[in-house]
Amino acid sequence: MKALTFDGKTLQLSRVSTPTPGRHEALVRVLYAGICNTDIEILRGYMNFTGIIGHEFVGVVEACPYRDLVGKTVVGEINIACGKCEFCLKGMKNHCPNRTVLGIKDKDGVMAEYVTLPIANLHVLPPKISALEGVFVEPLAAACEILEQVDIQPEYRVLLIGDGKLAQLIARVLHLNTTNLIVIGKHRTKLQLLEELGIATVLLDQAKFEPKSFHMVIEATGNPSGLSLALQYIRPRGFLILKSTYYGEHPFNPAQIVIDELNVIGSRCGPFPRAISLLEHREVLVEPLISGIYPLTRWQTAFEKAQSSRALKIILQISE
Amino acid sequence: MKALTFDGKTLQLSRVSTPTPGRHEALVRVLYAGICNTDIEILRGYMNFTGIIGHEFVGVVEACPYRDLVGKTVVGEINIACGKCEFCLKGMKNHCPNRTVLGIKDKDGVMAEYVTLPIANLHVLPPKISALEGVFVEPLAAACEILEQVDIQPEYRVLLIGDGKLAQLIARVLHLNTTNLIVIGKHRTKLQLLEELGIATVLLDQAKFEPKSFHMVIEATGNPSGLSLALQYIRPRGFLILKSTYYGEHPFNPAQIVIDELNVIGSRCGPFPRAISLLEHREVLVEPLISGIYPLTRWQTAFEKAQSSRALKIILQISE
Repeated sequence: MKALTFDGKTLQLSRVSTPTPGRHEALVRVLYAGICNTDIEILRGYMNFTGIIGHEFVGVVEACPYRDLVGKTVVGEINIACGKCEFCLKGMKNHCPNRTVLGIKDKDGVMAEYVTLPIANLHVLPPKISALEGVFVEPLAAACEILEQVDIQPEYRVLLIGDGKLAQLIARVLHLNTTNLIVIGKHRTKLQLLEELGIATVLLDQAKFEPKSFHMVIEATGNPSGLSLALQYIRPRGFLILKSTYYGEHPFNPAQIVIDELNVIGSRCGPFPRAISLLEHREVLVEPLISGIYPLTRWQTAFEKAQSSRALKIILQISE
Repeated sequence: MKALTFDGKTLQLSRVSTPTPGRHEALVRVLYAGICNTDIEILRGYMNFTGIIGHEFVGVVEACPYRDLVGKTVVGEINIACGKCEFCLKGMKNHCPNRTVLGIKDKDGVMAEYVTLPIANLHVLPPKISALEGVFVEPLAAACEILEQVDIQPEYRVLLIGDGKLAQLIARVLHLNTTNLIVIGKHRTKLQLLEELGIATVLLDQAKFEPKSFHMVIEATGNPSGLSLALQYIRPRGFLILKSTYYGEHPFNPAQIVIDELNVIGSRCGPFPRAISLLEHREVLVEPLISGIYPLTRWQTAFEKAQSSRALKIILQISE
């Protein structure tokens, strides 16, 4: 099959063998794969990953021991847990120390014609959600994770830093849960998408809030400068949610965390059912976030676009 | 009066005017002042403080509008709040944005014959607590702050990194609240003090725990290397308590916080009443932690000793 493989140095379109599903796995034909910032960071060295990249997808089950799934359109959770350890038994599968992670850690990803995944990871896409919208389930679930971690009180002033792919989804989710949200971003056109939904936004170079005046700040810029800005605006004892992962180390002094007794909370993968429900009931609309759809053969253009500061979600069409 | 003043470059014993207490303030004659790591960091540039340093003390009230306090032996909270802002009105005085901080921020400290403090900051030392023990109320309260922030569950494995002055107090407080505490330190003699209390300890170069196996890790080493070690041992979704402040920036990548969805919690000043109660009921014994008592005139030796890796608490005797 055709697949986008990364050897630690270069990404290329290769011909590799079609994977064989294990005993509790399904073979999924990939329809669409989304390009995520994590994919870009992987090309810079993040996680030292090699293999087929990609983890956001919608596909059709081609083969599966659970026959009812065959032919169904599915999305898939990306953490492949052992099912036996203390974390798995406590329902913390996403933190299983033995896990592999689709297209991120020791497991070939979805920018390929086929992928295998445990049945337990699959969610059937309801008919009201299009295949293109389904590509957003994984990142939308990640956005929803914040709601599992902080109980947003009515009086909280909430600041989201970032206007990119993930930040756009976070903004939509938070907007359903607080009336006090402000988004800082660098791109007028991206902020405009949020303004149209009634979300308050401000351009980075015009942002002049009172320092330390937000109860909750979400850092979702995808780069280290977002953290300094977040620290500028977070209140003492506030919640600082970190959503960005990036490659390499950066200078930092934790003194403010101590002095202001901040709660810094890392936030990663989230609940798929919640994300699917938001899309199904059209509480979050994602199509305006699609900046381009490219066939797998045009992967180079797709990755170039994905790295441009203007683009939001770039999607690879792998099969029909 | 005589006072230890720092001009941003050098610390020296100076003669300065005795301070005049404000309307709601007491004039306190200082008996003893403890040297804290924060004092050492201030000499390195932390907080850009200039003035009389020192914030741990026991003294006798010499003058005070509330006459019953005159002649009483007192300790004092170090955050001097405005009493009017949103934080003060919510009982978060230690986070008042208008606060000054005794010997740390815009307020002369206690390494002087006299200091002024608002009456609201003072706590009378019960007769069962000696003046020397009283010097430990402020750092012991800081140790107790951890209990206000995390509800330690019986199954939690708790790791304390550090065996210095503050870590010794934290260990004693945690030992009263969990049976699953282990302390990592660099100094055999300091760890020995904890072993004698029945606290499990291990020397840093012999520490070989399973990675990511502690529900709660407290970083109290006073230097940036403690943070890397803490990140090595904290479990996914665990609580990482930061107790150290230090000068300058250090390389750091927050990816693990995100991936493991850690809760990183800064922890600073704590509840004086709880600390006073622990000392009064002899649940925490602090005299073994005193490594030396020096008259103010021998401040240079005292500060040298305080910076030696062997020393625990060094105390200046200011008056009798």
